[in-house]
Amino acid sequence: MTHDHAGRIARLRARLTEGPADTMLITDLINVRYLCGFTGSNGALLVLPDAAVLLTDGRYLEQAAGETTDVEIIDGRDGVTAGLRLADRRGADAVVIEAEAVNLAQFARMEPVGPTLVPESGIVEQLRRHKDAGELALLRRACQIIDDAIRALMPQIRPGLTEREIALTLDRTVCELGGDAPAFETIVASGPNSAIPHHSPTLREVRAGDLLKIDAGALVDGYHSDTTRTFVVGAEPTAGQLDLHAAVAAAAAAARATVAPGTTGREADDAARAELTRAGLEDRYPHGLGHGVGLRIHEAPMLGAVSTDTIESADVLTIEPGAYVPGFGGVRIEDTLAVTDAGSESLTTLARDLIRLA
Amino acid sequence: MTHDHAGRIARLRARLTEGPADTMLITDLINVRYLCGFTGSNGALLVLPDAAVLLTDGRYLEQAAGETTDVEIIDGRDGVTAGLRLADRRGADAVVIEAEAVNLAQFARMEPVGPTLVPESGIVEQLRRHKDAGELALLRRACQIIDDAIRALMPQIRPGLTEREIALTLDRTVCELGGDAPAFETIVASGPNSAIPHHSPTLREVRAGDLLKIDAGALVDGYHSDTTRTFVVGAEPTAGQLDLHAAVAAAAAAARATVAPGTTGREADDAARAELTRAGLEDRYPHGLGHGVGLRIHEAPMLGAVSTDTIESADVLTIEPGAYVPGFGGVRIEDTLAVTDAGSESLTTLARDLIRLA
Repeated sequence: MTHDHAGRIARLRARLTEGPADTMLITDLINVRYLCGFTGSNGALLVLPDAAVLLTDGRYLEQAAGETTDVEIIDGRDGVTAGLRLADRRGADAVVIEAEAVNLAQFARMEPVGPTLVPESGIVEQLRRHKDAGELALLRRACQIIDDAIRALMPQIRPGLTEREIALTLDRTVCELGGDAPAFETIVASGPNSAIPHHSPTLREVRAGDLLKIDAGALVDGYHSDTTRTFVVGAEPTAGQLDLHAAVAAAAAAARATVAPGTTGREADDAARAELTRAGLEDRYPHGLGHGVGLRIHEAPMLGAVSTDTIESADVLTIEPGAYVPGFGGVRIEDTLAVTDAGSESLTTLARDLIRLA
Repeated sequence: MTHDHAGRIARLRARLTEGPADTMLITDLINVRYLCGFTGSNGALLVLPDAAVLLTDGRYLEQAAGETTDVEIIDGRDGVTAGLRLADRRGADAVVIEAEAVNLAQFARMEPVGPTLVPESGIVEQLRRHKDAGELALLRRACQIIDDAIRALMPQIRPGLTEREIALTLDRTVCELGGDAPAFETIVASGPNSAIPHHSPTLREVRAGDLLKIDAGALVDGYHSDTTRTFVVGAEPTAGQLDLHAAVAAAAAAARATVAPGTTGREADDAARAELTRAGLEDRYPHGLGHGVGLRIHEAPMLGAVSTDTIESADVLTIEPGAYVPGFGGVRIEDTLAVTDAGSESLTTLARDLIRLA
């Protein structure tokens, strides 16, 4: 997959002309990757008005040359200070730095170098929100792979399997279907463990009658997918399980229906919360509604009760309300949606019913 | 595995009495885990002279209660500012914060809260260097698992397999042998790709005559192992391959022989570099010699030409010199060593010869 890195750097430069400095040192490695394609674990990208320079170390010089175009590559072990020295030599009085990606220890080393440092938040992250056609194709494929992997897993589930065995089977299938890796640590939560929103798979064996919550994704060329489905294993669902699932399904549907450019993250969350409140579950929904997804599993926009973001066209984001009753179990239903000019398209195509497995 | 969290917090308090503040807000999640056992993805630990308080959010309250003992648990979505407000209410005038774990955006939100902030580096990291018996047992097991997984992989290698297939087989075997997951993204680098020190597995098929470099580890209860071996596939090694491997093996042996309390990271690196220089490869060794390993794959001490660390008893660290010739190939040999009072013990038990596979 070839991305339009030159176009991305041009859009960054255009954005910088609106601010106090026309030079930026990018140290968030995901942002470095987005802007120039470099995927190593040590790198900083200096974007000057007339050049872009990647600072990395000896381990990555060959890789960097293969992954980037139109970028100067310089061997500078501490890319952060090397980048500032270079900016200084090339006449930059002030350099924008990434407030979320520079820690206090790094800042203490950077301040004496020379240029005035201007910490700013979210500049490249805002560019990254708007997925182009190539990114959307990768996200669509990542969603397809996790959906297909869950479909392949469903007939293999039976009481007696441990959460960990189920997670491992799913992770293998993701790779066999062409995913580069799982997108994050797969959540398999059975029975009472399903009441833990973010649960690491344990050696607990699934029992007949359990709720089984699976939250997983696939990684494709750096892009993540994120899907959650909740099943019932080895028995018909009880009335209580059906009610819990129906309330979460209604919340998810209501929230998905709000997704369109101009909807705020809080409005989308309110729609889900209203359905859960109607079912008496307002205290059982302790997390946000969803998040953008792309080169990071969690990125802008964030949707939830304390969100300050507004949904925009070309966002790709999750809608994932849940309800968790300690001792009884929990349900979460999560889809990944691509926001269009008019509304949204779900990239997740799995059925959303409470399906019985085994 | 139950760790002595109370003892660790006591050692931290003793360390804090030497500095300007007796209260510390720990926001590095690995350090939070080390001190109290919490493994969630959002948490901050406030260590006061007479109490320890974990701040997390609704997703993790149940998990936190199960994972910790003798720690108060408070629901505070932004644990960083909530921790400072709590410190303020409990009378702390000054609070030590972790300079590496607080970014500029967080600092801007923290500064107005009240207590004087004292950024310091490496306080908990220094405690973490000294592995106790329980940690050593986990590290030993993690090393055993990756060694056994590589042994199981060796007879399966044949020309025509892709780097990615080999990596996937190794990752599965790590899990089948009881590892929780691979310790990091497995490196499988064949033929000319072996000249890239940190190479992500590609769809390149291994060919007869290739060097094959495998750098992999296992994760066990949060503890990492890290082993590299280089093989030759489907043919007897050439004289050039044998010479390159012999030079790296000599460098690795020389460096291992220096490992003991009191040796500096630079001295250990010098020993390896001298052997590579003797073989005319001084320009082919572009990275450091090794690193501590534990709850992080890279932690203190760091060993290399620019290291300022000195090896101490109870460190666990890697020794991993390499030499890389673009177009020809590369060799790296890496072992994990537990430092004893007198010297070291290798936790890696794989043979270090240039073994022919297939």
